[in-house]
Amino acid sequence: MLYICYMSENLLQNINNPSDLKKLEPSQLPQLAKELRDFIIDVVSVKEGHLGASLGVIELTIALHYVFDTPNDLLVWDVGHQAYGHKILTERKDIFHTNRQLGGISGFPKRSESVYDTFGVGHSSTSISAALGMAIASQLKSENKHHIAVIGDASIASGMAFEGLNHAGVTDANLLVILNDNAIGIDPSVGALKNYLTSVKEGKNPKQNNMIKSLNFDYSGPIDGHDFEALISELERLKKVKGPKFLHIITTKGKGLQQAEEDQVKYHAPGKFDKTTGEIHPKSEENLPPKFQDVFGWTLVELATNNPKIIGITPAMPSGSSLKFMMDAFPDRAFDVGIAEQHAVTLAAGMATQGMVVFCNIYSTFLQRAYDQVIHDVALQNLPVIFCLDRAGLVGEDGATHHGVFDLAYLRCIPNMIIYAPKDEIDLRNILYTASLGLHHPIAIRYPRGRGKFSNSKFKIPNSKFEKIEIGKAHLLKSGTKIAVLSTGFIGNNVDLTLDKVSNADEIAHYDFGFVKPLDEKLLHEIFNSYDTIITIEDGVIKGGFGSGIIEFASENNYKNTIKTLGIPDDFIEHGTVEELQQICKIDVKSLEKLFSTI
Amino acid sequence: MLYICYMSENLLQNINNPSDLKKLEPSQLPQLAKELRDFIIDVVSVKEGHLGASLGVIELTIALHYVFDTPNDLLVWDVGHQAYGHKILTERKDIFHTNRQLGGISGFPKRSESVYDTFGVGHSSTSISAALGMAIASQLKSENKHHIAVIGDASIASGMAFEGLNHAGVTDANLLVILNDNAIGIDPSVGALKNYLTSVKEGKNPKQNNMIKSLNFDYSGPIDGHDFEALISELERLKKVKGPKFLHIITTKGKGLQQAEEDQVKYHAPGKFDKTTGEIHPKSEENLPPKFQDVFGWTLVELATNNPKIIGITPAMPSGSSLKFMMDAFPDRAFDVGIAEQHAVTLAAGMATQGMVVFCNIYSTFLQRAYDQVIHDVALQNLPVIFCLDRAGLVGEDGATHHGVFDLAYLRCIPNMIIYAPKDEIDLRNILYTASLGLHHPIAIRYPRGRGKFSNSKFKIPNSKFEKIEIGKAHLLKSGTKIAVLSTGFIGNNVDLTLDKVSNADEIAHYDFGFVKPLDEKLLHEIFNSYDTIITIEDGVIKGGFGSGIIEFASENNYKNTIKTLGIPDDFIEHGTVEELQQICKIDVKSLEKLFSTI
Repeated sequence: MLYICYMSENLLQNINNPSDLKKLEPSQLPQLAKELRDFIIDVVSVKEGHLGASLGVIELTIALHYVFDTPNDLLVWDVGHQAYGHKILTERKDIFHTNRQLGGISGFPKRSESVYDTFGVGHSSTSISAALGMAIASQLKSENKHHIAVIGDASIASGMAFEGLNHAGVTDANLLVILNDNAIGIDPSVGALKNYLTSVKEGKNPKQNNMIKSLNFDYSGPIDGHDFEALISELERLKKVKGPKFLHIITTKGKGLQQAEEDQVKYHAPGKFDKTTGEIHPKSEENLPPKFQDVFGWTLVELATNNPKIIGITPAMPSGSSLKFMMDAFPDRAFDVGIAEQHAVTLAAGMATQGMVVFCNIYSTFLQRAYDQVIHDVALQNLPVIFCLDRAGLVGEDGATHHGVFDLAYLRCIPNMIIYAPKDEIDLRNILYTASLGLHHPIAIRYPRGRGKFSNSKFKIPNSKFEKIEIGKAHLLKSGTKIAVLSTGFIGNNVDLTLDKVSNADEIAHYDFGFVKPLDEKLLHEIFNSYDTIITIEDGVIKGGFGSGIIEFASENNYKNTIKTLGIPDDFIEHGTVEELQQICKIDVKSLEKLFSTI
Repeated sequence: MLYICYMSENLLQNINNPSDLKKLEPSQLPQLAKELRDFIIDVVSVKEGHLGASLGVIELTIALHYVFDTPNDLLVWDVGHQAYGHKILTERKDIFHTNRQLGGISGFPKRSESVYDTFGVGHSSTSISAALGMAIASQLKSENKHHIAVIGDASIASGMAFEGLNHAGVTDANLLVILNDNAIGIDPSVGALKNYLTSVKEGKNPKQNNMIKSLNFDYSGPIDGHDFEALISELERLKKVKGPKFLHIITTKGKGLQQAEEDQVKYHAPGKFDKTTGEIHPKSEENLPPKFQDVFGWTLVELATNNPKIIGITPAMPSGSSLKFMMDAFPDRAFDVGIAEQHAVTLAAGMATQGMVVFCNIYSTFLQRAYDQVIHDVALQNLPVIFCLDRAGLVGEDGATHHGVFDLAYLRCIPNMIIYAPKDEIDLRNILYTASLGLHHPIAIRYPRGRGKFSNSKFKIPNSKFEKIEIGKAHLLKSGTKIAVLSTGFIGNNVDLTLDKVSNADEIAHYDFGFVKPLDEKLLHEIFNSYDTIITIEDGVIKGGFGSGIIEFASENNYKNTIKTLGIPDDFIEHGTVEELQQICKIDVKSLEKLFSTI
């Protein structure tokens, strides 16, 4: 590793696993903490990744591996943004620089990567349930193990965590839940529980009336999560306590890097930065296309300015989704409800019954958390909620837990749903406008993580005029003689780029099917009557997705054309750049070029 | 209505809506309560339906419509089993006898049925989020309305309800949450929150330390929910309190019918009974086939007897799923986790990491609540959790909210999943056995509500020998010359019955595709090479379902056969008998007869 210069007395260089760690004296741990922070900062400043969360739990990470007998004792990290220190101390120091890269280690704990990663994580609030399951299993097997879930204050406010606590409280399982309370998730934590926790921290709630105690946990804390002495003595004490236990620790996200402590949202995943000064390297963004997220945020503010019935909702992603723009402009009509996708969707449904125009922005992968609410509370009642599915398709370095590739398949089977994937940021802008006019049906608008294709300035507010999109209408983008390519969404740009390259481009027509549902059946009849071969392409799973809908159409109408469906195969796709992952799925320009040239 | 004999002084006969109700003196309300109970008992004893829940909230129902200005004030019933009194008092007295019948009123509140039904319900724990959405909308529209969510103690323990409370507590929305605490859902409530509520009722927790207060609600109670004076004066008081309010009332499920009070589980939905004595009419069940549920329960006990690693989990459906049998036989290895599908699935995943053989039984429609957990916590890690999806397909009288028709579509797109639908109870028994041996993948076993097809005695324990089922293998049931019918699951019996009737049966082959995933591709090649026309049939949605998988296979392999897919169309199917609903979907024997005869 070129970028790390060890001092001679470096402790970390001799620590590859928890056994090595246990050889240190308690008095040496603060130095190790400093080295571990420096190591993470060194690597992340160059290789990028999640920073603040791991810096905040360095002492806890060291203390846990020091006190407990991992991997025999089972440690579950909730979400896993905070597990870099854990990875480095558990046999992955030498490959930590491959973090989040294709073929490298995952940015999240992952069972197939290490025996120390007891449970794969990425989505929030699973740790209590998983660790309880392990604890009950140990009990049944008469194995004497400790089971520890480390969960943040944003994650513990999600309903699933409550379900886990509610069950654990009536068991005598050997479960330790550690609440890592730093008052922030990716964005600052919200909600009544957060306020309650703050009051506990401030000493306004005597322990004996504690909410966690009401759930039959042995509560201890709050203690300073950066104080080794306090942490180790409390963990040692808790090792001897039977049944469900709860330790509340207070930490600072970004601890040890001044800028990261001061701007915790930005330093959650800051990109490249100067490891000495902490300054984030400025990116020249002037001539880059805007992010889809920003187009969403700007457009929503523009629409909301003219329509007081417009409401915006995000479950804990105001910065990531850019709903923040509306929260700043119209704080009474834009809601961050915390990590509560289920609530977000049904809240939107309740508002829609009263005639509000509700934009519910949820990352595609997280809408899986509210699938029943989409079916039962929105679609069944045909309420015109506008779902804005951010980070649809392959998301890149966050990997398998975060790709938004199932949405087309799991939404397409729901009656009453309209599903639209804009091919570019203008389409996104116009569909948001169109949806705001009232569609009498729910609509899911799915768009990718990252930048569109037009120059940035074009999308600043005030902006070009809106154009209404006709629901269910597909478009011919380029005519051809033999083959029709039907694309949906942003991936269609790969088709455009390919058609600019291949020599047989005149044979290949390209149609943009923004609407996955309803399909433009009139145009489909024309297409199936005009071309022998149809190729569909989407950045979603092939099974049950857009292409599957086209095949269903063909079958229903007894067309015998040859149809080839391109998209995500029936495997979980790991982490890497979007381009690398597209190559794996053969939906990148090069793969398309090869395919188009040979048909 | 033949079966109701009114007394001359009957109050209910003059009450058709809340305006009529408001003309009564408070002193007349107890008599009305008695009449309303009798009315419900009269109808439900003959027409069947949910009984105990509505009997328990008669006083609350009357008090709410008496005190509040419905439908201007917005009242949301959680789940809706308890809303019969509400329906009768809100313009549906005269059609209440059509409850749960095809074309009749729904067994649950439903927006399209009445302006008094502000939110469609059926699945639990949605009421707080929905009512909060309405309350925020009213606030933004400067409308002075009250918004009331009535939720039971089983439902409030579900994570989604916590998410709603957590958000509501930081708003100043005019929301009243009424906790109807009767210590039972369909089965007795469980969990730490339930124990806490019990301690509150018993006076062990002084109000000022209340958990609900920790979430920033104005808490009042507990009060006797059968005491009109207490109810009305408290509701009147709460009308004047600003912001989020919480009223805790204690009721008795089944109140007013002795047997229903004494056996609350049985009288949740007792079937036909004697309205005078309360005795349930005995059914002659001796020669009827067993319920799939019981076959599941018996088989699981049998398997668990021989394998200490087997675990059973149900989220709040021990009776309905018959997991109760295992809970009785092996209480340390069978868990009712309450209405907590998300937790149930990830708990199962946690146990599976430790080598346990976990049968996680969830109604098909409720697995929608844990979709993300199935993808992210089970399938992504390829953990061999055994999902037993009860009440898959059309469930009949419970209607649109409860049909388990989306599962094949939403599961088929998930990598690593095995999906199997047994054609009969022997197949169910054998797949449970096969799964218990270890499949190295998660499996979803979906089977219908109700009875199989063989005589009951055959399935009593000890039983016939188990047979291992080959994963992914489909079977020829009957050969034919021209057409191949491919069925999956129990609906295949309709095909058998049809083939016994049609004159051209020799032309029609029938294949049983128990495995929707992986498909038996070898056999499919044979089929596509042998028959011009393929018909698929399933009791799930056509879009993205089993038939769609067959079409995908054909497309991938460039087969040009004609394929017709039968199943649930792209609409929400309402309530009725299963037979009636099958007719609507054209998958009943008569429709199949017509189809088969004319091809």
